[in-house]
Amino acid sequence: MSAALPETTLATDIAAGLARVETLFDAQLTSAFPAVNDLCRHVERYRGKMLRPTLVLVSGLAFTGDGTQLRSEHDIVAGTVEMIHMATLVHDDVLDDATMRRRGETVNFLRGNETAVMLGDYLISNAFHLCSRAGDPALNLRLGEVTNTLCEGELLQLSRRHDLGLDEPTYFEIVRRKTAVLVGASCELGTRLAGAAPADVVAMREFGERLGVAFQIQDDLLDLLGDEATVGKSIGRDLEKGKLTLPVILHLARTQGESRLTALEAIAAKDGETVRAMLTRSGAVDAARARAVSIVEEAKRLLPQTRRTGSRELLLALADRVVARDH
Amino acid sequence: MSAALPETTLATDIAAGLARVETLFDAQLTSAFPAVNDLCRHVERYRGKMLRPTLVLVSGLAFTGDGTQLRSEHDIVAGTVEMIHMATLVHDDVLDDATMRRRGETVNFLRGNETAVMLGDYLISNAFHLCSRAGDPALNLRLGEVTNTLCEGELLQLSRRHDLGLDEPTYFEIVRRKTAVLVGASCELGTRLAGAAPADVVAMREFGERLGVAFQIQDDLLDLLGDEATVGKSIGRDLEKGKLTLPVILHLARTQGESRLTALEAIAAKDGETVRAMLTRSGAVDAARARAVSIVEEAKRLLPQTRRTGSRELLLALADRVVARDH
Repeated sequence: MSAALPETTLATDIAAGLARVETLFDAQLTSAFPAVNDLCRHVERYRGKMLRPTLVLVSGLAFTGDGTQLRSEHDIVAGTVEMIHMATLVHDDVLDDATMRRRGETVNFLRGNETAVMLGDYLISNAFHLCSRAGDPALNLRLGEVTNTLCEGELLQLSRRHDLGLDEPTYFEIVRRKTAVLVGASCELGTRLAGAAPADVVAMREFGERLGVAFQIQDDLLDLLGDEATVGKSIGRDLEKGKLTLPVILHLARTQGESRLTALEAIAAKDGETVRAMLTRSGAVDAARARAVSIVEEAKRLLPQTRRTGSRELLLALADRVVARDH
Repeated sequence: MSAALPETTLATDIAAGLARVETLFDAQLTSAFPAVNDLCRHVERYRGKMLRPTLVLVSGLAFTGDGTQLRSEHDIVAGTVEMIHMATLVHDDVLDDATMRRRGETVNFLRGNETAVMLGDYLISNAFHLCSRAGDPALNLRLGEVTNTLCEGELLQLSRRHDLGLDEPTYFEIVRRKTAVLVGASCELGTRLAGAAPADVVAMREFGERLGVAFQIQDDLLDLLGDEATVGKSIGRDLEKGKLTLPVILHLARTQGESRLTALEAIAAKDGETVRAMLTRSGAVDAARARAVSIVEEAKRLLPQTRRTGSRELLLALADRVVARDH
């Protein structure tokens, strides 16, 4: 019986932490203008998995002893990384001409690209303002570095749209920047704020970055193979927008001659059905999936010794969940 | 002869300061990716009047004694406010479908809206990162507050596009938020970093905010009346995008019956030539210009006692220049 108790406490602590983060998030975005509040309420509906704030809190709890509390900075960082993530979703939907997100209509679809651009800016600005409230310049500096990297990843991806010669290293460079660094920083800062040893902070960042890369590959697969009702957001956007994803790159790398030509034509023609069938038949889909799983396994091996009972098991479970999701 | 000397030194100090700010600005935006650097080089061409960094430096110098130096934080804040301003230009051009800026093509026109959205994000992110390098949480907090307000102003304006009932108080609320707070903060932070008394810091913020409001009214007038070759950017965008500006609001307020109906029709039809003629004839254009001038006069009266020789004259001249410009 006594073995189950600490684990229950950990789950309770995380749930309580996430509730505090939601309150902080909503309060930060409260404006004197109803027009602004309406838009923010719409964005709050996008909050789903809460992966990044969860990782901040779990990383924090993992490196404090049993029965100790998180610092208020953990909540601020958790709210900040989620707000940065929300801003990227709002602007990504503009870039992708997406109409659906979390089973609802996107801001750009409902209110136009102009409002979506400005709402994304409002979220970025509020993210930095929220972070500044911690009063710790190191947090601002680190998260500014992270968003610089994130934007560079997006710009790099935009510059390579419709480039059928995009290779695997460049794909991973883009993914690391646009997705993985924010997930890595969530683990890193949660751990650092808990006063963990520098080696643990670095290991947790590496753990998180790998989760981020695997998460993006899974996203690529869902965009290619998922159905809109289950995924809950617009799919087929990568092909439509000329973004080469891992299954496509792996397929092109393993195909020669006539078949390669047929593949290039189907990709250029944005023929989703043909591309899906070819990539499934050639084993490229399975290979991409296997790659995501092996990156998660690598992340799990990197996980350092944690202090809090049950935290190691929880972090391992979170890692597995990244690739075992259908939305 | 000796009276001219300190003024020359002030001009030299400002020129040297602006050169440092340009170096800082360019270094901050240097990326490992040529695709990103190309875009940033394009944006650096937008730097023109450097009004905001100049105000940071002059405000700083005004409140240090003769012969003293600015702090490195002045340069950082000056670079940050200019970078925030550049980000708003890039996103504004997307919102306005503008094709020309500083006699060159806009990023959205050259590279598409998607790249312009992401480049604006990269600039915002770098602005916060640059600011964080000062290591002073109060600066981050204040500038985060400023950009929150700025985005609220833009969102408020977007929510009232094509609203022919927009009144003067709402117009000024939008302008204060979207333009004036950043100019006000430039003066405020320059002064505060110079160690000035709190009353002087507040007075300088008020001075700057009024300059910002007058600047925006002048921008409205140039958009309505200027010619593209002189202004150097796309004009007629306000009418095209359904933004009611001060001359239009003043015209509608002073016109009744049939004439009012004709005006509303011309505005709704985006008939620039007719609107220009009506607003000029009714005196609304002159009234808007007079309002800008009177706001500048109010700013000048608010200017507190400065310490540095020549700084008062320079601040007064900068104030006048805001409304006496054709681009």
